[in-house]
Amino acid sequence: MTYCVGMMLDKGLVLMSDTRTNSGVDNISVFSKMHHWSVPGERIISVMTAGNLATTQAVISLLEERTKAPEDREPSILKAPTMFQVASIIGGLLTETIRDRQESSHHMSGGPKFTASVILAGQIAGMEPRLFLIYPEGNFIEASEDTPFFQIGETKYGRPIIIRAYNRQMSFEDASKLLMVSMDSTLAANLSVGMPLDLMVLERDKFEPLHERRIHASDPFFQAISTGWSEALRTAFHSLPGYDLTEKS
Amino acid sequence: MTYCVGMMLDKGLVLMSDTRTNSGVDNISVFSKMHHWSVPGERIISVMTAGNLATTQAVISLLEERTKAPEDREPSILKAPTMFQVASIIGGLLTETIRDRQESSHHMSGGPKFTASVILAGQIAGMEPRLFLIYPEGNFIEASEDTPFFQIGETKYGRPIIIRAYNRQMSFEDASKLLMVSMDSTLAANLSVGMPLDLMVLERDKFEPLHERRIHASDPFFQAISTGWSEALRTAFHSLPGYDLTEKS
Repeated sequence: MTYCVGMMLDKGLVLMSDTRTNSGVDNISVFSKMHHWSVPGERIISVMTAGNLATTQAVISLLEERTKAPEDREPSILKAPTMFQVASIIGGLLTETIRDRQESSHHMSGGPKFTASVILAGQIAGMEPRLFLIYPEGNFIEASEDTPFFQIGETKYGRPIIIRAYNRQMSFEDASKLLMVSMDSTLAANLSVGMPLDLMVLERDKFEPLHERRIHASDPFFQAISTGWSEALRTAFHSLPGYDLTEKS
Repeated sequence: MTYCVGMMLDKGLVLMSDTRTNSGVDNISVFSKMHHWSVPGERIISVMTAGNLATTQAVISLLEERTKAPEDREPSILKAPTMFQVASIIGGLLTETIRDRQESSHHMSGGPKFTASVILAGQIAGMEPRLFLIYPEGNFIEASEDTPFFQIGETKYGRPIIIRAYNRQMSFEDASKLLMVSMDSTLAANLSVGMPLDLMVLERDKFEPLHERRIHASDPFFQAISTGWSEALRTAFHSLPGYDLTEKS
């Protein structure tokens, strides 16, 4: 599995992904699931992927090839006029890649389905930062005031704390901490999500990562969060009023 | 969906279930998923069910019929010599019910699968309180020191807080509160889990419920927990050290 979160803030965008891929619990590897491309001063485009690794690597490679010589290859995400069109291009590549693989392996019934999904975050100069969730079918939805973050992969364990602690005005520091707490709850519950983590902070109108970091299991801050959160949760729990067993319904 | 938790403590067993059943989001109803049978001074047997409602109601009805005139009907869970055998009887009924339904509807391809699972908790005089998770296949596992609680249904959202705050020595009051917090996180994230809740506390060697209660959405204690937990989580989050964006990997 995988766990990736993209979060929209007033100040910009914060992204975090784990790096574990697995084909059975006895076959795990580390692969980055976070990639970005930028044109200094003009645009930054960042994607996180979940799903079949061969599919997501193929999509990233196709995007890479097209961004390296954008004048030769159309359509390029570095020339698309809006983030909406970037999302369309990536959605198209994603669904084509999945379809090609499924068609060329349809004789293997009951085989893997090759599906994948993508979180796309970025900004083009003169426009707002935007955040999208792209489905295997190639269609997509955009984050809004009401739904300001997207998760892909193993989304459930880490969701309650984001729902409770997120607010749009929070600092990048708090948002990074929140994603680590959310990730920590997921790591504790699902072996197929694993360290190290990738963190990226995209400040509004900056068009290059403000902060980009690989967080290893030995990272002292992450360890402090992980240990501290267990303790803080217990304290929070005991701060709630006590239940009275003698109460009747 | 459903969310049920059964928890083993030194002092006994604590069970909680939601009551929402649904067939699509436009068709929801309230049904109790928690049932118990007892022989005063001799045994108490409590079950919680998740899955296809017709299947779980059939299993409960079969258990009911057999318990009402146990001398006529074998095997009865009120006469089984051990909790292990009670689990075997319920597992057998469950898998038979599922198989009968599947066989008589196999012409409806792609139809529902009628599966269900059960948490069984109870004690027979002279033996320890025991807690089982019974699978649709009729086999089952038992809680232990290492895995002292079982969840069925929508298990993920409510799991991190149980992992963090549970300890075997906790009071019934704290355990009841913990299950409400876990339930609250689940209610906030999955519409197919819904109020009211059923709570049952089984004290060791008591053979009848020490406490049994239906908790409605208007319940002042549950409301205090629900509101207080959001606040306590935010406080816990802010009590953690701050992340430093200038740190390098």
